Amino acid sequence: MKKFVISVDFGGTNIKLGLVNTSGKIVSRANLATKNFASNKQKLIRTIVQSIDKLIEENRLTKNNILGIGMGLPGLIDPKNGIVLFLPNVPGWRNVPLRNIMQNATKLPVFIDNDVNVMALGEWKYGAGKGYQNLICITLGTGVGGGMILDNTLYRGEGFAAGEIGHMPLNEKGPVCNCGGEGCFERYVGNQTLQEKAAKIFKNKAIALEDVFDLAKKDNSRAIQFWEEAAAHIGNALVGVVNLLNPRLIIIGGGVSNSYQFLGKTIADVIKKRSMKTQADMVKVVRAKLGNDAALIGAFVLVKEKF
Amino acid sequence: MKKFVISVDFGGTNIKLGLVNTSGKIVSRANLATKNFASNKQKLIRTIVQSIDKLIEENRLTKNNILGIGMGLPGLIDPKNGIVLFLPNVPGWRNVPLRNIMQNATKLPVFIDNDVNVMALGEWKYGAGKGYQNLICITLGTGVGGGMILDNTLYRGEGFAAGEIGHMPLNEKGPVCNCGGEGCFERYVGNQTLQEKAAKIFKNKAIALEDVFDLAKKDNSRAIQFWEEAAAHIGNALVGVVNLLNPRLIIIGGGVSNSYQFLGKTIADVIKKRSMKTQADMVKVVRAKLGNDAALIGAFVLVKEKF
Repeated sequence: MKKFVISVDFGGTNIKLGLVNTSGKIVSRANLATKNFASNKQKLIRTIVQSIDKLIEENRLTKNNILGIGMGLPGLIDPKNGIVLFLPNVPGWRNVPLRNIMQNATKLPVFIDNDVNVMALGEWKYGAGKGYQNLICITLGTGVGGGMILDNTLYRGEGFAAGEIGHMPLNEKGPVCNCGGEGCFERYVGNQTLQEKAAKIFKNKAIALEDVFDLAKKDNSRAIQFWEEAAAHIGNALVGVVNLLNPRLIIIGGGVSNSYQFLGKTIADVIKKRSMKTQADMVKVVRAKLGNDAALIGAFVLVKEKF
Repeated sequence: MKKFVISVDFGGTNIKLGLVNTSGKIVSRANLATKNFASNKQKLIRTIVQSIDKLIEENRLTKNNILGIGMGLPGLIDPKNGIVLFLPNVPGWRNVPLRNIMQNATKLPVFIDNDVNVMALGEWKYGAGKGYQNLICITLGTGVGGGMILDNTLYRGEGFAAGEIGHMPLNEKGPVCNCGGEGCFERYVGNQTLQEKAAKIFKNKAIALEDVFDLAKKDNSRAIQFWEEAAAHIGNALVGVVNLLNPRLIIIGGGVSNSYQFLGKTIADVIKKRSMKTQADMVKVVRAKLGNDAALIGAFVLVKEKF
C-alpha cells in the first residue's frame, strides 16, 4: 500500500497543507486563511482536521495510507510532549496540547515542532543541506530565525527555544527590540527595518522590498548598495555563529533571500574576512532550495524520521 | 585490580600530569616546564612519556593498572584521528599524530582533545555542570574560550574548531583581533586588555589583575566598577549565546573568574535583562568548580567515557 504523510505549515497568515509521498514530493495541497478564525482555537483546529480528511478523500486514499501528520508552527513548541507553548503572532495560543487534540480527532500519529526547525529539517534532508552533518539554516523575513543541525541532529535547546539568530546582538548598544533586548540582529535586517530604510533612500513610502530587488536587477546602484549593506549586517552576525559553531554550511532562506543574487557574495565575503581561519575555510554559504515548500517538506521529515 | 587514568594538561607554559582514580580523584601529580623544550617536539614527547612511566612506578603500579592516557592541548585538535592540527602558542606543533606517537611509546590507549573542551567535560561530569544536558563552559584568561555540552554531548564542530566564544564579535566595529576579526569579545575582556585598562585607571603600569581584585575586596569603588564593566561585556557576549543555544547553565572559569564575586551578579543580570524570556528564565550562571584541575579531570573523563 502506498504511504503518505500529511504536512501542515501553520503560519500567522495562512495554513498550508500538503499530501507528501514517501519520496518527499508534495502530490496534493490545500490552504486555509489563519485570520478567518481570529482567536477561535477550537474552530481552527476543527477546520484543519476537516481539511486533512478532505485531502485524504480527494486523493482517493484512506487513513490507512497515512503514516502520520507533521506540523510546523510559528512559536515555541515542545515537540517531546506535543505542546504548543506559545505562538506570539496568533492570539490565544498558549500551552495547547495540540498533539493530543489532533491525535484524538484524526486517529493518526501527530508530530509538531517550531516552523524554522521544521524548515531546517526540510532543507537538510531534501534541499540545500543534503548530506551535511553541521549546518545553520537562517530565515530572513519579518522575523529572523534559525534552525541548527549539529552532529547530524536538530538541536532544539534546553527549553526548545534554541536557534534565535535574529536575537543575537550585533552591537552592545543598538536599537531596542520587541524581545526586550537591544541591538538584535533582526533590528538591522528584519523586513520592517529594511522597508523603512528603503522608503527613506528612495523617498517613497510605498516601496516594497520586491521593488528594490527589481531596481537592483536593473543595475540601480543605490538598490545594489541597499542589499549589500543588508548583506554586510547578515555576514557580521554570522561571523559569531561560524566561530562558535564551526558549521560546514549556512543556508539562507526566507522572503528576503529572494534577493540572494545581491546578498550571497557579500555575506560569504564578510564571513571569510572576519571569521577565524579554520572556520572560515570550511564554511559554505548557499541559498535555500525548497522555497515556500521548506516547512511542508520539513514537517514530512518530522514524521518520516519516526518510521 | 585498581584502575587509574593518566591525565595530561598540556599548557603553553606548564605540562601537568595527574594519576586519577576511577572516581575522578587526582591521587598523584607531576609537572614539566613546556618552555624547557623550545621547539624540540621529540624531546618534549619523550619527557612526557618518561614522566608517565615515573608516575606509574612511584605509585607502585604497572601499566596493567592504567586504563589509558587522556590529554588536553591548547589548540586545534582532531580527536577522531588523534592529531594535533595546530598549537598557536607552542612553536612547531602542526599536524602531529600525537595519539599514535604516544600509543607506540607507552603501549597504552591515548585520547587527545582541545583543552577547553576537556575542561568542559571535567566541569560537566565532576564539577559545576553535573547532571546538566545543555551547558556552556567559558574560560576567561589570556584568551577567552568555550566548550559546549549540547544534548548531553560535547559539540566539537565540523572541523573541531567550535566553541570560540572569545571570537564572537561584540560590535560590528571594534578593536582588531589577532584572529583577523574585529570587535571580538576577547578584545574586551582578555587578560591583556584588562591589564592595560587597569594600568590606566590606577595609573600604575605594574598593577596585576590580582591587585585589582584585592582592591575590590577592600571596597575600592574604581576597582569594583572595573570588574562590573568587564562583567557587562561578558554578559553582552553571552546574550547571543543564550538566545542561540538556549543552555540551562553557563559555567565561568579561567583566571579572570577568580574575581567571580565581583563579576557573577552583573553577568547574570545582563543576561536576564537582555536575553529572550524563555532563554533568560531557564539559564543559570555559576562559577567553575574544579579550578586549575578542570583539564586534568576532563582528560580523565575523555578516557573514562571510552571504557
